[in-house]
Amino acid sequence: MSVYSAPLRDMAFTMKEVAGLDAVCAQPGFEETSPDLVEAILEEAGRFASGVLDPLNWPGDQQGARWDNGVVHAADGFKQAYAQFCETGWNGMPAATEFGGQGLPTLVSTAVLEMWKSSNMAFSLCQMLTLGAVEALARHGSPELQQRFLPKMVSGQWTGTMNLTEPQAGSDLSAIRSRAVPEGDHYRITGTKIFITWGEHDMAENIVHLVLARLPDAPEGVKGISLFVCPKYLVNADGSLGERNDLMCSSIEHKLGIHASPTAVMSFGDQGGAIGYLVGEAHKGLGYMFTMMNHARLNVGLEGVAISERAYQRARAYAIERVQGRTLTEGSRGIIGHPDVRRMLMDMKARVEAMRALAYYAAGQMDRAHGHTDATVRQQSQAMVDLLIPVVKGWCTETAQQVVADGVQVHGGMGFIEETGAAQYVRDARITTIYEGTTGIQANDLIGRKLAREGGVTMKALMRTMSADAHRLSEHPDASLRQLGQGLQRGLDALSQATDWLLTVGTQQPAASAAGAVPYLKLSGTVIGGWLMSRSAEAAQAQLSGAAGDEGFLSAKVGTALHFLHHMLVEAPAWRDRVVNGASSTLALREDQF
Amino acid sequence: MSVYSAPLRDMAFTMKEVAGLDAVCAQPGFEETSPDLVEAILEEAGRFASGVLDPLNWPGDQQGARWDNGVVHAADGFKQAYAQFCETGWNGMPAATEFGGQGLPTLVSTAVLEMWKSSNMAFSLCQMLTLGAVEALARHGSPELQQRFLPKMVSGQWTGTMNLTEPQAGSDLSAIRSRAVPEGDHYRITGTKIFITWGEHDMAENIVHLVLARLPDAPEGVKGISLFVCPKYLVNADGSLGERNDLMCSSIEHKLGIHASPTAVMSFGDQGGAIGYLVGEAHKGLGYMFTMMNHARLNVGLEGVAISERAYQRARAYAIERVQGRTLTEGSRGIIGHPDVRRMLMDMKARVEAMRALAYYAAGQMDRAHGHTDATVRQQSQAMVDLLIPVVKGWCTETAQQVVADGVQVHGGMGFIEETGAAQYVRDARITTIYEGTTGIQANDLIGRKLAREGGVTMKALMRTMSADAHRLSEHPDASLRQLGQGLQRGLDALSQATDWLLTVGTQQPAASAAGAVPYLKLSGTVIGGWLMSRSAEAAQAQLSGAAGDEGFLSAKVGTALHFLHHMLVEAPAWRDRVVNGASSTLALREDQF
Repeated sequence: MSVYSAPLRDMAFTMKEVAGLDAVCAQPGFEETSPDLVEAILEEAGRFASGVLDPLNWPGDQQGARWDNGVVHAADGFKQAYAQFCETGWNGMPAATEFGGQGLPTLVSTAVLEMWKSSNMAFSLCQMLTLGAVEALARHGSPELQQRFLPKMVSGQWTGTMNLTEPQAGSDLSAIRSRAVPEGDHYRITGTKIFITWGEHDMAENIVHLVLARLPDAPEGVKGISLFVCPKYLVNADGSLGERNDLMCSSIEHKLGIHASPTAVMSFGDQGGAIGYLVGEAHKGLGYMFTMMNHARLNVGLEGVAISERAYQRARAYAIERVQGRTLTEGSRGIIGHPDVRRMLMDMKARVEAMRALAYYAAGQMDRAHGHTDATVRQQSQAMVDLLIPVVKGWCTETAQQVVADGVQVHGGMGFIEETGAAQYVRDARITTIYEGTTGIQANDLIGRKLAREGGVTMKALMRTMSADAHRLSEHPDASLRQLGQGLQRGLDALSQATDWLLTVGTQQPAASAAGAVPYLKLSGTVIGGWLMSRSAEAAQAQLSGAAGDEGFLSAKVGTALHFLHHMLVEAPAWRDRVVNGASSTLALREDQF
Repeated sequence: MSVYSAPLRDMAFTMKEVAGLDAVCAQPGFEETSPDLVEAILEEAGRFASGVLDPLNWPGDQQGARWDNGVVHAADGFKQAYAQFCETGWNGMPAATEFGGQGLPTLVSTAVLEMWKSSNMAFSLCQMLTLGAVEALARHGSPELQQRFLPKMVSGQWTGTMNLTEPQAGSDLSAIRSRAVPEGDHYRITGTKIFITWGEHDMAENIVHLVLARLPDAPEGVKGISLFVCPKYLVNADGSLGERNDLMCSSIEHKLGIHASPTAVMSFGDQGGAIGYLVGEAHKGLGYMFTMMNHARLNVGLEGVAISERAYQRARAYAIERVQGRTLTEGSRGIIGHPDVRRMLMDMKARVEAMRALAYYAAGQMDRAHGHTDATVRQQSQAMVDLLIPVVKGWCTETAQQVVADGVQVHGGMGFIEETGAAQYVRDARITTIYEGTTGIQANDLIGRKLAREGGVTMKALMRTMSADAHRLSEHPDASLRQLGQGLQRGLDALSQATDWLLTVGTQQPAASAAGAVPYLKLSGTVIGGWLMSRSAEAAQAQLSGAAGDEGFLSAKVGTALHFLHHMLVEAPAWRDRVVNGASSTLALREDQF
């Protein structure tokens, strides 16, 4: 039996040593975010995750959300847990203070969100979608709309959704057909939306749908899409709930995983048109979605971290308990004493820590981009965020697939039995490489908008930083750090060669370039992950040399970085080869030859 | 909507050009296995797989097998399909003629079994277990036991099972506790067995359980385990069914996949002892299991091939149909025209064909080991089989995980919806790296019993053969083949270095060696797969240069081999590095540091 335990030590270490928590907290607006406060928040969140959310995860998966004639019942216990989640203020915690949130750094809320996602990913999605809708309204809604909707969405009294996808418009939102017709101060919305996470449920008294639709005079394609607020219940002038709006959940999907998170098919305007209110200006809806994309993609990338952490914890507990045969490793009776089981656990641990380092680093950059006192730093940090986000989203979710698979494998035959719990993570994790933009979409964003469009300026700056670190470590008196520095340099060489190829040959050959996009994303994640693990190891080594510190944790940090080097960073040349030489065979066959 | 279509062209090509079908058919005993007969068998089997088994696959998964007070009902339609399967003779087809089988080469039956596993893996397991039990009895049972059980098991009137695992004895069978007490001409068996595939069901009138148990005087450990036949219904002297034996299915597991294949918990002897008959000699049961292991492991490896083929077919169909955005590739309207989708499909295709080549090559070697006229060839082929089987089992099933994951990913959001069908393959495939010996078990077998024990003789012989091919191809007039030869040589260098390390340093450091076992297995599969793809390409190129041939298929064969080179074989150096340098970090941490 494994109970989720928030990895507070690694979280705190990574926030401080990798993501620069101290500098972030020194920024204007975060004066009250003291180290003690951060520690207290993380501990309290960890208790909620372990005590309330984790125990509901497996029953929620087995029961799932249930649709009954348009009404969706959350799994047993979810409604009570959600009420408690909102009462204690966790729902709105990451939001800005002006709307009732706590205005904490993104870095701090990222660590907290990781806990919700580790302990109960299906549950966590309701808050995640609500926060996305809050952000959209806070950035683009009129003061009147903000006043009407935001306070109750932040508190969690009402939840929020994003209605983007239609059956014919998935990755290609230009194909959206939903219509919005003006009628007085509002619009009448008609259309069908699919894959709407927590699109209908009974945990909150109202659901605020953000809906992409076209006005009658809208131009074709992406430049003719507008954003509307469409609440499930209309809201009266005094803030009380009015009539039911003309929208309904016609079904929920039967999915591989996240069973407790209802994925709704939403039908707008079957009775003549759902009342909706325009957010911002007409035809700019897609752009508004893009402004929220970085947070949303960071959060899905974080799901890769979170579910991997949970899978690791469960596998570790089993491997320590389960005795089977004579072990080869001193000090272990359980199967963790078998070198191959240990290899899987080390792979899991190394990947989890590298992913966490990357996600937190990006979160810290977001805070710098948002509130650093120096405008140049803000600008550079924003460029770094833009570059890193597709890597965080794509690499962490892809890497998670291997971690959760290892989690099952460590359990042997028991892993395949649903009651064991390891298999659920395989099922849940599978969505993360798909929603909020597939890995292919992330990779195209990376090589196109983030790399080629600016001639690789930000990537090259990042590579210079990494190279300086590699150089310093390569000459470090400590042998482990020297190894890490040399290995990082080899990884950087591969990244540099692939980057050069994309910026020269690749720009002349769009199809070949696109064929190498995902390999390039994986190469980037591997090298940047290796870099951040080296930074962790350097900080841990410094603490070990100093007076204070937890020897077990700190030396493990160095050992885990070495494992990342010897087992993950060694893949960099193969990823480079796929980018540089791989397109010809990828594109060689005619369709009829498949 | 995707319907399974047996890949007859690739099967025939691989059997002939890679696995040496012609030479196998020229062996004594296979005189009647003409090319026309093989073609007819494969076509007929393909029709049965597409027409009967494939349509039951998804409904069977959704309904699953159902336990009701000791009785297990197969999913709707399975009983009828099984009756038809037996009537047409498919059940016993791979068995020897003396027991009513068709005595075909293993190579031919392997291609047929692939079809059952592609179209309905859960269904196929019933036959697979029965054939295993048939083989055990045919090799080790007394003539009387053979006569009593084999004909009806071969015909399928009765099915067979393997009762090995107990809660405390999974990978470590030495911990088996089930007891067998002599009583006249039989024994009384008591004990609990778990994970018994098709251990109870209503498709056949009797179930013949093979059970591992200990005699009262048995030595501890693996040398005290005996094998017994324990039929569900006792069999009278005239062959008719007698009383119900004292064994029952106390529950079936709730699993991640293969829902239609009941995985039983079997309880023997609750009423005093199930009647069982000793197979062969006392205390030699585990050895008897090992003699059947090669076929069983080949067949599970084949599941990796089969489910990957099916996932590929479904993804291909979707990618051709589904239109989303403007494509970059000429001649394609569907998402197959997007380079990243094409990359996934090419990855799937290349992996499927390399896995098939490896599995069929091993099957062909089994036929040579069994019936070649030259005793030296028989011996060498058997050594090759012993070396290759853990690679077939381990590498094909591990590789399948990536293929089925890509199959979901190609579908985007639809892939996560169960009704689409792609997710089932992810769930079903997950067991293949676990049962019949986990990947870790295969890898330890490979580096221990198969490599170190004989000082690497067979692996070195194989590497010489591969190296000669690489050398020949490297100087071939055709540029593609030259590339393949050079790439293969680089892969071989890595394999050679890792092999040397295991045979020198590794033998002195058992834990370090075991830490590199799975990486070495993956390295071996990657390089051997690349070698067989090169052989395929060479044969295809020769046919292209000649008069006859299907240009589309043959040039795709060359292109797919190049894809394997550029995208899979490039991983070889990283696998080598993990073997040679990876153990130190794998084994560095103390248990309390995890």
